[in-house]
Amino acid sequence: MSIFITGVAGFIGCRLARLFLERGDSVAGFDNFCRGSRHNMKGVLEHPNFSFSLIDLADLGAYRRALCELHGRDPVTEIWHLAANSDIPAGVTDPNVDFRDTFLTTFNSLLLMQELGIDTIAFASSSAIYGDFGDQSLTEDIGPLFPVSNYGAMKLASEASISAALESHLKRAYVFRFPNVVGVPATHGVIQDFMLKLKATPGNLDVLGDGTQQKSYLHADELIDAMLFIRTHAHEKMNYFNIGADDDGVTVKFIAQAVVDRVAPGATITFGHGNKGWVGDVPKFRYSIQKLANLGWRPRLGSAVTIRKAVDEIARQEYGQ
Amino acid sequence: MSIFITGVAGFIGCRLARLFLERGDSVAGFDNFCRGSRHNMKGVLEHPNFSFSLIDLADLGAYRRALCELHGRDPVTEIWHLAANSDIPAGVTDPNVDFRDTFLTTFNSLLLMQELGIDTIAFASSSAIYGDFGDQSLTEDIGPLFPVSNYGAMKLASEASISAALESHLKRAYVFRFPNVVGVPATHGVIQDFMLKLKATPGNLDVLGDGTQQKSYLHADELIDAMLFIRTHAHEKMNYFNIGADDDGVTVKFIAQAVVDRVAPGATITFGHGNKGWVGDVPKFRYSIQKLANLGWRPRLGSAVTIRKAVDEIARQEYGQ
Repeated sequence: MSIFITGVAGFIGCRLARLFLERGDSVAGFDNFCRGSRHNMKGVLEHPNFSFSLIDLADLGAYRRALCELHGRDPVTEIWHLAANSDIPAGVTDPNVDFRDTFLTTFNSLLLMQELGIDTIAFASSSAIYGDFGDQSLTEDIGPLFPVSNYGAMKLASEASISAALESHLKRAYVFRFPNVVGVPATHGVIQDFMLKLKATPGNLDVLGDGTQQKSYLHADELIDAMLFIRTHAHEKMNYFNIGADDDGVTVKFIAQAVVDRVAPGATITFGHGNKGWVGDVPKFRYSIQKLANLGWRPRLGSAVTIRKAVDEIARQEYGQ
Repeated sequence: MSIFITGVAGFIGCRLARLFLERGDSVAGFDNFCRGSRHNMKGVLEHPNFSFSLIDLADLGAYRRALCELHGRDPVTEIWHLAANSDIPAGVTDPNVDFRDTFLTTFNSLLLMQELGIDTIAFASSSAIYGDFGDQSLTEDIGPLFPVSNYGAMKLASEASISAALESHLKRAYVFRFPNVVGVPATHGVIQDFMLKLKATPGNLDVLGDGTQQKSYLHADELIDAMLFIRTHAHEKMNYFNIGADDDGVTVKFIAQAVVDRVAPGATITFGHGNKGWVGDVPKFRYSIQKLANLGWRPRLGSAVTIRKAVDEIARQEYGQ
């Protein structure tokens, strides 16, 4: 009996695999190395209770063959579906990216779960399904749902497919609506972007937008803790929760300053105009985590501490110091 | 300059084409004859301002070639995207049906609109995006959105993709959330199903479920009237409206009796158990049309009159009398 993780070589997948293995589970995982890498799975790949296959889940034939083989050898009891494009701007430029990597991977997973009789899914959804509600607090039941990025659209499409599957073959679903998550191994995101820019032009950090854009951030450690908490304590057929920090967040300006302070003290920061960094971005949002708090989980770190911690970790990753 | 209709040979598409032609527009349409037919386009196909191509919109290459050719000859100003699977149970049995016919047709349409610079879409969405809210009134802004059929899921996925496209290349969208629509040319639905059953066993009508399932119904004439009203009077970037009858609807029992009275007087009606006809069906829902009423449109017929009118029309279609 094993837990199966899609996107196992990614930012969250590799950490989750490590945790499951540590608590004694058998874990199998697939990844196409689109965002993930073998490097991320250090300490996991070598584990005797872990098996890995390099598979593109958008290729249904290859996915079916590999999962059937795995399931025949060691029955899969639940799927943690984390595989997705995680670069939102890339999906704005080319809608095919999120269609393939974010939605088709879910659709194919559900098809195969039906074929193989695997009835439990845990799914990495996103706050991006909500679109832009301005100052309104984003509770799980808010509407209408008009995402502003293809990433958000394909996460919403995935939730909708899971919801429909619960009416036919699925027994239980856990839908985790991720906030902005930071930590290592970082594969993308604002902190890493700033460091890459500073490597190119060490004396100056050029920031898109005016820096007033404000978001809350959660550390990957806390995200995974919350996911496991929900998996243990929520018992509905459809268990859907926002996971996020407990505050209104920090500005882009704050993050830029934290990065400069850590890796390029004294560098100047130049801001652009407007408070939207890129098409499909939501300039400000207030993320309600009341439902999760009612279940009994709250984050320990605020956004500011989280950002400073992640900046330090990513600096070690990027600069080795 | 022409209006382009996908699914033009279907139940609503052919009627819409006829109306546009009557008011003097040029109209082009594609259909794959999955549900639609040449027969439905009687009086439209022959019109000098109408052009038709037999195209499967899920085949992006074929769709691109045909739409480019059309757009080069006579620029398309807006797309009325009606192509979709309309047989909800078929999509429950095989999720690929709605993936291909309901979602991929939308996704491909949006890709081509971006390529060709066509910036206005009118889209046939559905009350099925809402899922099962029990007795709660379904307003447009209700949440969470957990559809119970793949059809509903892929309509929601389509709305989400349109919403994301509005952030990049689309200028305006009209999203019509269809109720249960009846009328001719009927291609599927409860009235036609009952008549087909009565043709097979004239003395008895066997009804799935206990007949207490209650829904509101709108006549196709009124639906199209509402769509054109919204197209003229709504001026937001995203214009989304429930379209439906103004009452709590009629029961399956009422419809069964109306069909028997019209085509097989004296036949007995046998009911099954439970109030769900099939997986993915919503047993009862209250559809709010307040937003549309505020815009200035209300249906003239109630569900009961609508059903009797449609039963008569479909009887003529099926029995020629």
